[in-house]
Amino acid sequence: MMEKKSLAETRIFDSRSMKKVLMHDSPWFRILNFNLSAGQVFPVHSHDTEGQLSIQVLEGTGEFLGKDDQAIPAQAGDLLLCDISEPHGVRAHTDLRILVTIAPPF
Amino acid sequence: MMEKKSLAETRIFDSRSMKKVLMHDSPWFRILNFNLSAGQVFPVHSHDTEGQLSIQVLEGTGEFLGKDDQAIPAQAGDLLLCDISEPHGVRAHTDLRILVTIAPPF
Repeated sequence: MMEKKSLAETRIFDSRSMKKVLMHDSPWFRILNFNLSAGQVFPVHSHDTEGQLSIQVLEGTGEFLGKDDQAIPAQAGDLLLCDISEPHGVRAHTDLRILVTIAPPF
Repeated sequence: MMEKKSLAETRIFDSRSMKKVLMHDSPWFRILNFNLSAGQVFPVHSHDTEGQLSIQVLEGTGEFLGKDDQAIPAQAGDLLLCDISEPHGVRAHTDLRILVTIAPPF
């Protein structure tokens, strides 16, 4: 398989809740695009499973969230790497787009 | 571990050859940023191993390359998904930045 997707086509914001778009799913990795309107929060969460994830900021500014109220500035081009089992989340200051890659999916 | 990297800091082009920057490596996935100057080619190749990869265009325009001289237009926001065992490559028309995620690394 060789398949092309376009992140330009998934640039959809919803003022009521963050927008989630599944870009790819396979036994190897899952790729999701989340679009958060300014002020929205992807709540801190974690999963008790092996593996890691990346959170890449596509556009906008905000914060990567972690355990104990940790907040790390996040802007376009930033790439956060963490274990799936580790608390992680995102807060949008402006409209914010992120690409999340999870390996392996769970 | 929770670690932040910045793709803004790896925006380095070299007119002699494409620039490769390792962003992350773990048993789960490997993430690489390749920067190709206009005209440079990431030659078509494949590896006889299980897994998949994504090639995300960060900026610029060019083509995703495949078997039998396949060439698929590529621009910022495009995401190519393919098996590691499948021939794949990239040609840069303008200066082109891509983020490649390989799961699992091999």
